[in-house]
Amino acid sequence: MHAAADEPAAQIAADVLARLRERRPRVHCITNSVAQNFTANMLLAAGATPSMTVAPEEVAAFVAGSDALLVNLGMFDAERREAIEIGIEEAMEEGVPWVLDPVYVDRARARAAFARTIITKYPRVIRLNAAEFVSLAGSAPGVDSLKRFALDSLAVVGLTGATDLVADAARIARIENGHPFMAKVTAVGCAGTALVAACLAVEHDPWRAAVAGLVMLGVAGEIAGERAPGPGSLTIGIVDVMHALDRDTLIKHTRVT
Amino acid sequence: MHAAADEPAAQIAADVLARLRERRPRVHCITNSVAQNFTANMLLAAGATPSMTVAPEEVAAFVAGSDALLVNLGMFDAERREAIEIGIEEAMEEGVPWVLDPVYVDRARARAAFARTIITKYPRVIRLNAAEFVSLAGSAPGVDSLKRFALDSLAVVGLTGATDLVADAARIARIENGHPFMAKVTAVGCAGTALVAACLAVEHDPWRAAVAGLVMLGVAGEIAGERAPGPGSLTIGIVDVMHALDRDTLIKHTRVT
Amino acid sequence: MHAAADEPAAQIAADVLARLRERRPRVHCITNSVAQNFTANMLLAAGATPSMTVAPEEVAAFVAGSDALLVNLGMFDAERREAIEIGIEEAMEEGVPWVLDPVYVDRARARAAFARTIITKYPRVIRLNAAEFVSLAGSAPGVDSLKRFALDSLAVVGLTGATDLVADAARIARIENGHPFMAKVTAVGCAGTALVAACLAVEHDPWRAAVAGLVMLGVAGEIAGERAPGPGSLTIGIVDVMHALDRDTLIKHTRVT
Repeated sequence: MHAAADEPAAQIAADVLARLRERRPRVHCITNSVAQNFTANMLLAAGATPSMTVAPEEVAAFVAGSDALLVNLGMFDAERREAIEIGIEEAMEEGVPWVLDPVYVDRARARAAFARTIITKYPRVIRLNAAEFVSLAGSAPGVDSLKRFALDSLAVVGLTGATDLVADAARIARIENGHPFMAKVTAVGCAGTALVAACLAVEHDPWRAAVAGLVMLGVAGEIAGERAPGPGSLTIGIVDVMHALDRDTLIKHTRVT
Repeated sequence: MHAAADEPAAQIAADVLARLRERRPRVHCITNSVAQNFTANMLLAAGATPSMTVAPEEVAAFVAGSDALLVNLGMFDAERREAIEIGIEEAMEEGVPWVLDPVYVDRARARAAFARTIITKYPRVIRLNAAEFVSLAGSAPGVDSLKRFALDSLAVVGLTGATDLVADAARIARIENGHPFMAKVTAVGCAGTALVAACLAVEHDPWRAAVAGLVMLGVAGEIAGERAPGPGSLTIGIVDVMHALDRDTLIKHTRVT
Repeated sequence: MHAAADEPAAQIAADVLARLRERRPRVHCITNSVAQNFTANMLLAAGATPSMTVAPEEVAAFVAGSDALLVNLGMFDAERREAIEIGIEEAMEEGVPWVLDPVYVDRARARAAFARTIITKYPRVIRLNAAEFVSLAGSAPGVDSLKRFALDSLAVVGLTGATDLVADAARIARIENGHPFMAKVTAVGCAGTALVAACLAVEHDPWRAAVAGLVMLGVAGEIAGERAPGPGSLTIGIVDVMHALDRDTLIKHTRVT
């Protein structure tokens, strides 16, 4: 099922998962209301403790008390924009790592412009799909363009799709795990970015954190998808599988090159 | 189980569903936060691609890039009101069909007044329940009052309940599909209106689109309800069944007179 | 499994549940967007009719037409703050009982200050966890500190955790029902407070209402948890079990001292 070369990624994911379960890091999520409930349950299942307020008045207090910050642009209202700006400032001051999910930047110009601005504020990881990548990077996704975008943005880039690619300027991982149902329900990508944020709370190397988070998501989704009669059941089963996920399951199922 | 007279409705639903799956239309949803996640998953299961932003600054861009617009009044805050007005203007300019779900207009006068105003802006379909109908039409629901309301509003009227009625000034369909659990969970009606919006993206006749969307919902809900131990399971099973829904299942299960 | 002394609590819960199912009270919920969908489905499963708008302009109309009000601080944005103030004023004027869920007051000072202010406006019940209790009561949770806090706030206090404690100045109940998965998914506590609000709509004694609501939640969660392969499945199963909950099941499973 997987070659010896896969073992490092499975190992990375297993080590990070063990730390998540031991330390139970707090992850503050500024995310869209479509994804909030599923994201919270996926974080809890992985061992993290989510908080979700988007009120500008209190987001700094929540970020300061958190171990990582998720910034998801899936709802781009005035309140969330303000909360994001405050949250990122606080994260930078307090040394809290943050990740960016630039949802649908390909659909609205103002959102893409905002994404470009906050990318200058050092997200550790940017997780996006192919259309969003094209919108931000100005080129088709591929190993070279990913590495270039990672270098330009000083961030690890996690491009998800049938195969996930995780790149920094030097390293690349291809994650082959997953299931077609994962693209048939909303918020799976959003939850994946949240998992990467959780991993960043316990793993300083952002490339390893991104690999760990996306491997966990891919393996949990693959196992849940194989058992699910349809995509509705996947949304429940993936939480169950994430909660039960352990080193052995990761070692057995991870397919990364 | 069903008479020959049913076949047209089943045929309509099957034809529209086939086009949904082939064309994967984009449906922009201005809807309440209670219903967003379930609505998105039902649209994805039927073959459509949902977007959900309610930010007034970007709603025009999303509507312009969409094939249909859903306007749901279940949350009636200042931001959504503004987004709805912008969204409808854009839809009218761009020729994007839109549908109205006047949630709980029977509970707050300002909401009913707002609904009456936007009904002058040519929704293709209005989907509501009996209490909402009484509030807007000023008369008890029945074949004559539905046809009159359809004529007055220049919209198809879809009244849902134990039996669904879909009327324009000339035609009426009675959809007998469904399951009691569908009234025991939130957002099923909201998702039904979203399905009608998706159908409008691939079917110009709004009466056929409304029949198609509500038949799909009723058949999926009926099959899922019969398998579900309770209404919680229905919310998952209905997504699974909608994803697997096909012509044969529709032909076999549709009960419309 | 349970002693004769437990029967009163099971009886209370069974009596209140029967009234919920007969009267189907309306419960208006000003709650966070993470919890809205699950809360609505749990209320529907118990027999209540939820509404969820947080628009300041119409919250008074919804509260005036409701039998109980839930105030949950899990999202503490300007709009919800205004809606809460209007909603509580209306509830006091109309004699609509209201309950408070001071989510995460231990994480942000302004939220705790706001909670302290609205506690002066006579919530019938305050439902919280240990960290939230410490933040508001200024002392560790225990029988004496709960009774003191209940006396000071003139409210029944429902402290939830592995064991739930329900106290007013004179009475205390220890609810031993529940399942570890209930702490592994979001919004279970929020839904519990909503159930207490529903119970208050049909039971004037707030201590009995709080016992009834938390017993229903604990028993439903325990039965669902024992059947669930993981916490994801719990979120669905608990709605199914709540919908099927009856006197016999409550009498058989309630463990209260």
